[in-house]
Amino acid sequence: MAKRSSGTRRSGRTEARAVAPEVIAAANARPARDWGRLHGVYPYLVSPVDRQGRVMAPVLRRLCDHLIESGVHGLTPLGSTGEFAYLDRAQRRAVVETTIAAARGRVPVVAGVAATTIADAVAQARDYAAMGADGILAILEAYFPIPDDGVFEYFAAIARAPALPVVLYTNPQFQRSDLSLPVIRRLAEIETVRYIKDASTNTGRLLSIINAVGDRIGVFAASAHIPAAVMLIGGVGWMAGPANIVPRQSVELYNLCRAGRWREAMARQRPLWAINQAFAKYSLAACIKGGLELQGFAVGNPLPPQPPLSAEGRAEVAKALRSVGALD
Amino acid sequence: MAKRSSGTRRSGRTEARAVAPEVIAAANARPARDWGRLHGVYPYLVSPVDRQGRVMAPVLRRLCDHLIESGVHGLTPLGSTGEFAYLDRAQRRAVVETTIAAARGRVPVVAGVAATTIADAVAQARDYAAMGADGILAILEAYFPIPDDGVFEYFAAIARAPALPVVLYTNPQFQRSDLSLPVIRRLAEIETVRYIKDASTNTGRLLSIINAVGDRIGVFAASAHIPAAVMLIGGVGWMAGPANIVPRQSVELYNLCRAGRWREAMARQRPLWAINQAFAKYSLAACIKGGLELQGFAVGNPLPPQPPLSAEGRAEVAKALRSVGALD
Amino acid sequence: MAKRSSGTRRSGRTEARAVAPEVIAAANARPARDWGRLHGVYPYLVSPVDRQGRVMAPVLRRLCDHLIESGVHGLTPLGSTGEFAYLDRAQRRAVVETTIAAARGRVPVVAGVAATTIADAVAQARDYAAMGADGILAILEAYFPIPDDGVFEYFAAIARAPALPVVLYTNPQFQRSDLSLPVIRRLAEIETVRYIKDASTNTGRLLSIINAVGDRIGVFAASAHIPAAVMLIGGVGWMAGPANIVPRQSVELYNLCRAGRWREAMARQRPLWAINQAFAKYSLAACIKGGLELQGFAVGNPLPPQPPLSAEGRAEVAKALRSVGALD
Amino acid sequence: MAKRSSGTRRSGRTEARAVAPEVIAAANARPARDWGRLHGVYPYLVSPVDRQGRVMAPVLRRLCDHLIESGVHGLTPLGSTGEFAYLDRAQRRAVVETTIAAARGRVPVVAGVAATTIADAVAQARDYAAMGADGILAILEAYFPIPDDGVFEYFAAIARAPALPVVLYTNPQFQRSDLSLPVIRRLAEIETVRYIKDASTNTGRLLSIINAVGDRIGVFAASAHIPAAVMLIGGVGWMAGPANIVPRQSVELYNLCRAGRWREAMARQRPLWAINQAFAKYSLAACIKGGLELQGFAVGNPLPPQPPLSAEGRAEVAKALRSVGALD
Repeated sequence: MAKRSSGTRRSGRTEARAVAPEVIAAANARPARDWGRLHGVYPYLVSPVDRQGRVMAPVLRRLCDHLIESGVHGLTPLGSTGEFAYLDRAQRRAVVETTIAAARGRVPVVAGVAATTIADAVAQARDYAAMGADGILAILEAYFPIPDDGVFEYFAAIARAPALPVVLYTNPQFQRSDLSLPVIRRLAEIETVRYIKDASTNTGRLLSIINAVGDRIGVFAASAHIPAAVMLIGGVGWMAGPANIVPRQSVELYNLCRAGRWREAMARQRPLWAINQAFAKYSLAACIKGGLELQGFAVGNPLPPQPPLSAEGRAEVAKALRSVGALD
Repeated sequence: MAKRSSGTRRSGRTEARAVAPEVIAAANARPARDWGRLHGVYPYLVSPVDRQGRVMAPVLRRLCDHLIESGVHGLTPLGSTGEFAYLDRAQRRAVVETTIAAARGRVPVVAGVAATTIADAVAQARDYAAMGADGILAILEAYFPIPDDGVFEYFAAIARAPALPVVLYTNPQFQRSDLSLPVIRRLAEIETVRYIKDASTNTGRLLSIINAVGDRIGVFAASAHIPAAVMLIGGVGWMAGPANIVPRQSVELYNLCRAGRWREAMARQRPLWAINQAFAKYSLAACIKGGLELQGFAVGNPLPPQPPLSAEGRAEVAKALRSVGALD
Repeated sequence: MAKRSSGTRRSGRTEARAVAPEVIAAANARPARDWGRLHGVYPYLVSPVDRQGRVMAPVLRRLCDHLIESGVHGLTPLGSTGEFAYLDRAQRRAVVETTIAAARGRVPVVAGVAATTIADAVAQARDYAAMGADGILAILEAYFPIPDDGVFEYFAAIARAPALPVVLYTNPQFQRSDLSLPVIRRLAEIETVRYIKDASTNTGRLLSIINAVGDRIGVFAASAHIPAAVMLIGGVGWMAGPANIVPRQSVELYNLCRAGRWREAMARQRPLWAINQAFAKYSLAACIKGGLELQGFAVGNPLPPQPPLSAEGRAEVAKALRSVGALD
Repeated sequence: MAKRSSGTRRSGRTEARAVAPEVIAAANARPARDWGRLHGVYPYLVSPVDRQGRVMAPVLRRLCDHLIESGVHGLTPLGSTGEFAYLDRAQRRAVVETTIAAARGRVPVVAGVAATTIADAVAQARDYAAMGADGILAILEAYFPIPDDGVFEYFAAIARAPALPVVLYTNPQFQRSDLSLPVIRRLAEIETVRYIKDASTNTGRLLSIINAVGDRIGVFAASAHIPAAVMLIGGVGWMAGPANIVPRQSVELYNLCRAGRWREAMARQRPLWAINQAFAKYSLAACIKGGLELQGFAVGNPLPPQPPLSAEGRAEVAKALRSVGALD
């Protein structure tokens, strides 16, 4: 396991979990925790929901345990793979609560906040901070395009809401308003804005971001980027759906990259890429939920009308999993 | 509140505005109401929300009264101009409730239902039906693309939820999954699916829809189409934001089209188009809210981080309003 | 047959079809010809090319004769349906030359000029003017986006090259750089820039253009617009591929529109629209060449690697042609 | 002119620049030449054209000499930076002829073939082969979308025309019809199809291609990819415009990557990326021509109506060049 040293940025942030009475019990072994600089492999957790719309906490807990035991560096509930756009407020809360409780302070939990309005985003961020989240993944949803100033205000408001580290989420493909380099530069000056996760397919954009603000914020890859390539150019890890189904393999790849053993890293990376390809080809949540079902985690299907993984997709995912030893 | 189930389709409908007294009586008595075939001008109502996130019911009521007195044929809360994507459930309910109460049965209220999941959409539709809505404008939101079968299931589930007439909403520009002609054909076979509103800019698509299912469902234009052109090809009216600020002029245009007085219709249409142009150029809600403020309706600004109408936009809207006699 | 009075710009043009002999004399003498204001139905001629790359002049001549006898108001070689992008300079010249010779001065010939550079465009325009073309359809091809000033310079250079009327061609879908409203305004001030043909699907854009410069330049529709709707809003006709295979029906539709007989016009328009739908669905040139083959014009297939019309497409086109009496 | 058929694929290639004398001798003798497996840095040469449309051979020759002396592994005239889409046949021929003559057999010349029709593409390929080109960069231009079979036929026809190695060019951003993975697989089975250059921004796509056909064809990066990242995942080099203005630095970067000295490679890569960023931001040809002018190569401006590099762009390029020692 990679060493997690405290960074210099600590600057007396208040431990949000300490203020939530019911969280204190769970946080017994957790005095004011500082995770230092976040890095490594963060699976975008799926959100298991049954046909009646209830979050299936037991299987989610079991998945969290399994992932942590497999060595992942953190957990990210409510990313795109977590179907944040398909869950109502109560379902979202249940997913975050279950994840934090399951993590038991073993790894940081970075919870996804996604909204169209500043008011909603700030409310979500405060809510998750009170529950004990260790960081916020900040996602801007938009129906109409928003100019740069509005984009800045949205992310800045989240960053100022609780005193948690914030990961900016940027995805030019799915977001109608996106983070331009000038806005990223402005946001990087806010103390709590410490990371960015770029979900475009444009790896060069990551190097532009690293060149511009890499000394201030850490860059995480997404499933559309080749993790090894992003590590080479200076990335700090990746937050992505595939790590749900290949957690051990992902951590091994990360460790090889960190050690500068690039030839070996690429030998691992090549077959793992087939998972990301399937992930891009079939619907994200469907692909990962289907893969987890194959591995014995009964997480169910994506919320309707999203289709479940097709038989063809299931075969492709199974083959890819087998080729990297993630399925018998 | 009494439910207004629509019965069989009437052919010889009476002119709504001409029979206001009877309509009111009928609304008071609250028997099963039949509006006949919906048609005419339906303003996409703005949603006035104050800085604390409260729906400002008085100004919304006043706007509804003004619009009905100006002759509009119906009201549509929670369309795109109504910022449905920016309101939470409570705000949405307040907007629909206020509108239905303000309408007092004088004109039909067609409430917007927008969701990513079938479960959420059905719940909203039932909710608005119970409140007394006369129809549902059904909008599919999607984060990931949905195949045709999923799109069909979504709209079909709404159509089957309450026994209200449904207006399908289709917008290839904003919706990630959209209604293809084959899906529209399948949906048109459902009894309650009676209308479609196409918000693309492609007027030819409307004629393709009319040629395919025009005998079963009525086609409403949106602000991106030229209303007179859509009436010419067989449309039944339009649902759009600009009618908030030029209601009387819109109704006059509608009546000229219905009477086949095309030359006069175009003489009205030409200057009115400047409003639609501004509407497309500036953010929809910002443009209409800004125009209403100019006309003395203090509806406020769009919800942040959406920007308010710029000074330049305000000037352009004011000029366009003045040119059609909608501002002194 | 409908009367074709040209407005104030008429200045002595005579009824083309009725005065063929004089016209021929005039054409032979080649004095400065004035067709008045161009209007009506202009088929985008296909370019029949055999497998060895030779333009098949006989069938093109026969097609021109047939179209003129069917009443079309002009001919447009080298539009998009004419596969201008697939022909080399010699092939293009042969198509224009054949068309002008076949027209024999009976109707105006507006030849397509398409280039990426100003130098090439000007050379083409001068060439076609010297051959006897009556107007230029000016198309900007671009590999890289061009800013507004470059777009203006391109069209202005063509307009200044020979003293022929110019039709601006604008197509946001296919052109990488397109004509913005401000550039159209600037170009409309050049004496020879007299028309615009918009090949977007956005009919509202046409009304915006008409509102802005409709007093200076005439607006032609394209196959993506509903001709009757464009005539209603003030268009002067249409230049499009489908008129190759339904020339008589197109002229009848045009005449009804000009006479303000909109109900009858729409009764014709509706079944004709199926041709435009097929045209949009299958490749343009393939669709029209396939339709002409069905009608007995052996114009061959589009240039490889463009595929010929599929069996399915052929059936759809045949059905549409039969429904309007354009195929037995 | 002697034909240079490439034989079987060599693995133990010798360093081209180290054996310049022998290479020149070989070129003079003009036996069937075998360059082995192409690899390394291939600048996409600019095409210097004066205001009268004449190719300025002297400055192009001087540039070729300078690039070869700087160690580049090959030259690519008529790539996108070479403005192939803006040159007529005679200009294209002059550029290829000048380049081949200037190279004097010291490095391979891979000439760009770009056309909309198979006939034109095959004619160009044969022409350049007869001139002595060592390979063909095959580009599909399309006005209308082409189905997969047509795309295959186009590239297959070029590959079968002369017996030269072919580099497939794929660019989903600029090409209207593009190479899908299944088509790439089919093409890779043709003996002469040996390389692919992907000009998308999606680096993951390159790994998908390498995983699928990397044992048969070599993958070159383009300017939109980070060269070091592409080398890490198994690329064989890059063909791109920026190498015109930073040839020595590009070769050094390439050598570090080949030696597996990734840390040093990234130290070079980071400042070099600013050139690629400027290249993407300003028009490609304008950016490189502007940079060369700064370095003393009077290559002129892009062909009108393309704009020259703006003052702002010039400053940005100058700064980037200075930061890597490519400008005093």
